[in-house]
Amino acid sequence: MNFDKGPRVLELESRLADFMERYVYPAEELYAQQIERADERFSTPPIMAELKKKARDAGLWNLFIPPDLSEFGGAGLKNLEYAPLAEIMGRVLWAPEVFNCNAPDTGNMEVFMKFGTPEHHAQWLEPLLAGEIRSAYAMTEPAVASSDATNIECSITRDGDHYCVNGRKWFITGAMHENCRIFIVMGKSDPDNPDRHRQQSQILVPRDTPGVTVRRRLRTLGFDDAPLGHAEVDFDGARVPAANLLLGEGRGFEIAQSRLGPGRIHHCMRLIGCAQRALELACRRTDSRRTFGRKISEHQSVREAIARSVAEIESARLLTLKTADRIDKVGSKEARDLIAATKVLVPEMAQTVIDRAIQMHGAGGLSDDFFLAEAFSYARYCRLADGPDEVHMMALGKQTIRAYAG
Amino acid sequence: MNFDKGPRVLELESRLADFMERYVYPAEELYAQQIERADERFSTPPIMAELKKKARDAGLWNLFIPPDLSEFGGAGLKNLEYAPLAEIMGRVLWAPEVFNCNAPDTGNMEVFMKFGTPEHHAQWLEPLLAGEIRSAYAMTEPAVASSDATNIECSITRDGDHYCVNGRKWFITGAMHENCRIFIVMGKSDPDNPDRHRQQSQILVPRDTPGVTVRRRLRTLGFDDAPLGHAEVDFDGARVPAANLLLGEGRGFEIAQSRLGPGRIHHCMRLIGCAQRALELACRRTDSRRTFGRKISEHQSVREAIARSVAEIESARLLTLKTADRIDKVGSKEARDLIAATKVLVPEMAQTVIDRAIQMHGAGGLSDDFFLAEAFSYARYCRLADGPDEVHMMALGKQTIRAYAG
Amino acid sequence: MNFDKGPRVLELESRLADFMERYVYPAEELYAQQIERADERFSTPPIMAELKKKARDAGLWNLFIPPDLSEFGGAGLKNLEYAPLAEIMGRVLWAPEVFNCNAPDTGNMEVFMKFGTPEHHAQWLEPLLAGEIRSAYAMTEPAVASSDATNIECSITRDGDHYCVNGRKWFITGAMHENCRIFIVMGKSDPDNPDRHRQQSQILVPRDTPGVTVRRRLRTLGFDDAPLGHAEVDFDGARVPAANLLLGEGRGFEIAQSRLGPGRIHHCMRLIGCAQRALELACRRTDSRRTFGRKISEHQSVREAIARSVAEIESARLLTLKTADRIDKVGSKEARDLIAATKVLVPEMAQTVIDRAIQMHGAGGLSDDFFLAEAFSYARYCRLADGPDEVHMMALGKQTIRAYAG
Amino acid sequence: MNFDKGPRVLELESRLADFMERYVYPAEELYAQQIERADERFSTPPIMAELKKKARDAGLWNLFIPPDLSEFGGAGLKNLEYAPLAEIMGRVLWAPEVFNCNAPDTGNMEVFMKFGTPEHHAQWLEPLLAGEIRSAYAMTEPAVASSDATNIECSITRDGDHYCVNGRKWFITGAMHENCRIFIVMGKSDPDNPDRHRQQSQILVPRDTPGVTVRRRLRTLGFDDAPLGHAEVDFDGARVPAANLLLGEGRGFEIAQSRLGPGRIHHCMRLIGCAQRALELACRRTDSRRTFGRKISEHQSVREAIARSVAEIESARLLTLKTADRIDKVGSKEARDLIAATKVLVPEMAQTVIDRAIQMHGAGGLSDDFFLAEAFSYARYCRLADGPDEVHMMALGKQTIRAYAG
Repeated sequence: MNFDKGPRVLELESRLADFMERYVYPAEELYAQQIERADERFSTPPIMAELKKKARDAGLWNLFIPPDLSEFGGAGLKNLEYAPLAEIMGRVLWAPEVFNCNAPDTGNMEVFMKFGTPEHHAQWLEPLLAGEIRSAYAMTEPAVASSDATNIECSITRDGDHYCVNGRKWFITGAMHENCRIFIVMGKSDPDNPDRHRQQSQILVPRDTPGVTVRRRLRTLGFDDAPLGHAEVDFDGARVPAANLLLGEGRGFEIAQSRLGPGRIHHCMRLIGCAQRALELACRRTDSRRTFGRKISEHQSVREAIARSVAEIESARLLTLKTADRIDKVGSKEARDLIAATKVLVPEMAQTVIDRAIQMHGAGGLSDDFFLAEAFSYARYCRLADGPDEVHMMALGKQTIRAYAG
Repeated sequence: MNFDKGPRVLELESRLADFMERYVYPAEELYAQQIERADERFSTPPIMAELKKKARDAGLWNLFIPPDLSEFGGAGLKNLEYAPLAEIMGRVLWAPEVFNCNAPDTGNMEVFMKFGTPEHHAQWLEPLLAGEIRSAYAMTEPAVASSDATNIECSITRDGDHYCVNGRKWFITGAMHENCRIFIVMGKSDPDNPDRHRQQSQILVPRDTPGVTVRRRLRTLGFDDAPLGHAEVDFDGARVPAANLLLGEGRGFEIAQSRLGPGRIHHCMRLIGCAQRALELACRRTDSRRTFGRKISEHQSVREAIARSVAEIESARLLTLKTADRIDKVGSKEARDLIAATKVLVPEMAQTVIDRAIQMHGAGGLSDDFFLAEAFSYARYCRLADGPDEVHMMALGKQTIRAYAG
Repeated sequence: MNFDKGPRVLELESRLADFMERYVYPAEELYAQQIERADERFSTPPIMAELKKKARDAGLWNLFIPPDLSEFGGAGLKNLEYAPLAEIMGRVLWAPEVFNCNAPDTGNMEVFMKFGTPEHHAQWLEPLLAGEIRSAYAMTEPAVASSDATNIECSITRDGDHYCVNGRKWFITGAMHENCRIFIVMGKSDPDNPDRHRQQSQILVPRDTPGVTVRRRLRTLGFDDAPLGHAEVDFDGARVPAANLLLGEGRGFEIAQSRLGPGRIHHCMRLIGCAQRALELACRRTDSRRTFGRKISEHQSVREAIARSVAEIESARLLTLKTADRIDKVGSKEARDLIAATKVLVPEMAQTVIDRAIQMHGAGGLSDDFFLAEAFSYARYCRLADGPDEVHMMALGKQTIRAYAG
Repeated sequence: MNFDKGPRVLELESRLADFMERYVYPAEELYAQQIERADERFSTPPIMAELKKKARDAGLWNLFIPPDLSEFGGAGLKNLEYAPLAEIMGRVLWAPEVFNCNAPDTGNMEVFMKFGTPEHHAQWLEPLLAGEIRSAYAMTEPAVASSDATNIECSITRDGDHYCVNGRKWFITGAMHENCRIFIVMGKSDPDNPDRHRQQSQILVPRDTPGVTVRRRLRTLGFDDAPLGHAEVDFDGARVPAANLLLGEGRGFEIAQSRLGPGRIHHCMRLIGCAQRALELACRRTDSRRTFGRKISEHQSVREAIARSVAEIESARLLTLKTADRIDKVGSKEARDLIAATKVLVPEMAQTVIDRAIQMHGAGGLSDDFFLAEAFSYARYCRLADGPDEVHMMALGKQTIRAYAG
């Protein structure tokens, strides 16, 4: 557990921070305007295209790719090394995409790298790695509590040399984006298998497959998160070649487990960045305004709230680092307790810290003039994304009790 | 402190609940669609116009008007009597307008009733009471921490038989609405007055006055609260007749104090309704879905969260009733400690209860498919509306310390 | 739900407050010294005996007795009427005994009044009502989670015209007191009864019965609560006449239910008093000392903490009153949801408020120089007494879900 | 920031854990009995003397001494290396003394090592290092809010070749112990110095100096923490040689700052141990008992509470390690922000985690049968010890605001 950053990480960190200062923060207003004024909110804003090019030229591209997959690109960074970079990217909600490091594409690319065939790579992974197309991961369903994966109802049925996919999914992040081309769909290929974790499969469904309908965009706490968006999608007899099935029938749960580990931690890294920025904004705001005879920053309750936030952010950051390190060393499966602990602690921490920062900004803190409201929504969303916290606490609690009382 | 409801209140309550069941809940989806699909989000959705007519015909109209102002309409209900009705209306965020009982119009109408001249009444109050026009109250400013009213920078300058208004305001609720016709503006007419609470005046500025520009709509936690909306408004040399000044120069602070008392409590009553409905939805949702071998409602943590919510809602409701009763008996000024306590406790309670209900709904809880996300935003907003909680706690804390340690 | 106090309650309240001012607060130090210096901590301190006499002479005696039992004494006060008086008594932890209104004797006396025979009345109830002896209620067991009453292991076995009691109990409040003469013991007379709530019986066991051993005093968070104390007690073949069985075999659960309703609410009333006094002490303390250039009471975080406490105490008080009123009107059984809500909300509120007051007192707040530490312990204890909060939340949650989702 | 433990630390950790298993945990009951039954609670229980000898023989002695002071003993461990050992010791409240690593003696020994003369070393430090005598640090005063050190009223007045000390101190930990021989007293030697941090001096006052009176033992949340105890002490014209003044007049504040840094962190390390043990006990307890048809550990709310505790303990532990590391690298002064953050986060975390564990134990959790109640008291105490949290938050908040808004 050595959290010292090596020279390469320090160098990347410095360049990334510099990139943010020079290009990303100054573009925040423009980006918002381009989305707001676009005919189609779910298209790529021109400034995003520009920034992506710049980032790629600067070698700040695909940094999420871990060492064992470095044949696909990136800088061979371990999770522990990637963490401080993801934190910096997290300071602007749409910044990760600039560096081709945004959810859900990162997780999806990992699935392709690990479980895809050369054909899948050529067709989907390469353009994803190049940032040319977007992808989506279709797991959650509106009709059941799909946090218990055994509840999933979407069916994947063999039909000759094809599979037929039927079901409704929602909260499919990225699916609204006009460049979204491919869905990784979780469904049941063998619903009667007595081993309830062998009933599921995952399959690739191109977005333009007949029978696929993106029904509507969903909002989370008022935000549509354009241009990626969250969609409700119908699969109504969508037929795809049998080769689109990943890894083999009955291995969907296994793929899901593999995918979600680092994904959850990447969310946490970015949320640390959100919380940290909220703290900094709160310091500046309260120090620049006065009420009742003194600066807002001089009121003792403000100082206490700032101090608590410092302590909470720092301890959450360290937990995230430890978990990243643990994944690097023993893999997601062995690190699942720490992943669960982090997944539970960090979003709640971020929500709390950002809530305080909003309060210190007055009504403006709720508006789009600051990044706080959207960051709040992101933090709140992460308490449900990749399974509600309660599911992770159930597993971690059980595991801990077994460890000490077994 | 007799909280028993008299026969007239029981009858109104029953009719109001019935009206909600028959007309309002079934219209929620349509209302949302009409807003979403309107060319102009800030116009009255047709269903609202229909419902208003129905409510007026049913005598469920202007119920907020207190007994001492009953010459202007309503049912002569005291705050204590109005509370359970406001709670019922609060169960749908846009329902209060159906009954002409929505903020900020109610507070503005009270200002007109108490401090307006017969001319003001004829021109503005009557169409407001009839629900034909909307109004806004322009107090908060973007450039200063206006929760300390002595910071206000908007100027109201005498110029012959007119006043000239200059300043920028924001979070002006209702100002986006196409029917909004009149602003009550708080500004400084005497910025050098050594008595810092005599520097302010309030003045009526018709929205179509030259120099008035509604610059943009603001969102709160992602919601634009259409069709009422929250606006940023410029007053750039807006000239209005001297007769538009309310009550006299230097009395703006006094009007503000008078206006905000019941207004805060009305927000609290409605928030109780939000929290109560969130609780009910959570019960239904968790009882209709299963995870890990049992109904979600059977997990002990869900039961505990429901139980806590019951206790918190009920105690907050009782505090609101006590405060309403106290205002009825001794007036807002004497009841200011209880108003502050209620203003601090209720929105936080509602935010917490709704947050739990969202969590129990899974990702859907964050979407617009349930009223939870918007209700969450409303509760969060109320922690800042009419002054951030911290200002109220400062006053209440000071007062309490003086009472016990003086 | 009329919370206005009638003239008789106002008069009693005034006399009681006066009694506290004149006799009880001034005796706090002496009382502590007499306990501390006594050869036997669990005997009646002389000052208590004096004060009891004074209280009885003043007619401030047995005020807990409800109207339907007023033949036994008291002032015929309903729970709602008793609540403000219990709150005042609660301001000093040992004060309730001065007025013969302390737990567990009040609850035990109610059991005697409701379920005792004339012989029980003559032998036990009369000296209890006179404050001459003390009693204990033996329910909790060390070996099992007795919050689930079906777990209870203590046996009550018929043996000719006697019953034989075997089992170990702990946290038997009052059992350490040298004047404690009688135990009401909950045990199983019919452990195989398929109706799990008919297995239990309650029986009277005089403390001097052979086979009864008070093994040791237990402390709660460091306090032994002398002179009442909490004891671990062995019943080792304790034989008592069959007439000592209350109400009949298999009715122990029913008696327990009946006993615990008002008892829980009385704890809550007293805790409101504890919290209120803690608040007042905090105001005085912070207003009398200075740090960093101003009075502690002038730091904004202190004002906020005071303000929150005011709001939380007041709303908890109102909830307690509503519950008391409900018990008066429909009985404990029908009021069980409100009882549970109150039982959960109030102790936690009191713990929080007192914790804040301790913090505002600095290290002294933890010492015995203020009543805060012991009051904290009492509040914390009440989260477990009469069943841990979780049991009550389980029932309330279940009930609420059934009500809204059924 | 390399948290990997080197071989020597691993070896010490293993031996220490083994020592605890073999000697300390099995002695907990005996220790409690010896204290309880002693004629004098504030003498060394025989088992403590035995264990100290064993620990010394095992080389587990004075491990707190940092590398730069290793001439005085110990194992040359940095704070980061000492942290996991202190955590293990913290699992039994009295265990640190077994290893001569208990507060306040460790901090006092550091003062002697850093600021004492050879004469001081010979007379006081050597027997302290040998565990033969105990010491106390007299800073807090009952009459003022001494968390603001400029409020201190105790006077240190030059009188020829002596100093005369006058003042009352309280919460002087260790002063009750019969082996306590020496006080380090903070007082004002120059109360009129315009530099408010140069008014104070620190001086050595042997406990048997005429004019020194240990007035009484104080309890914290009911515990007297025998045999060390917390005392109220009078210095009434206590005369000591001028050579007893540490470092020079006006340097008392500087010494205090130097002393408190590592001291606060040592408390935090031990509290992590308390919280961790509470968690483990909770797992065992809930897994061994049943309510309502299942093990307590199978109730979802219990699992969630356990999971939260894991996350909170682990993140707090990491923060403590980072702070320890930072002190090692840049010293207490430069690390003061992290020290403050840790001092604020850890005790609150420990209080919360232990509170949950108590609740899961039922009433027994409040008793002395488990270590939980006393650990709770210790955690609560630490929120006030070495300055209330609010003082540390004030400094940290200020500093943070300056850093980001400056």
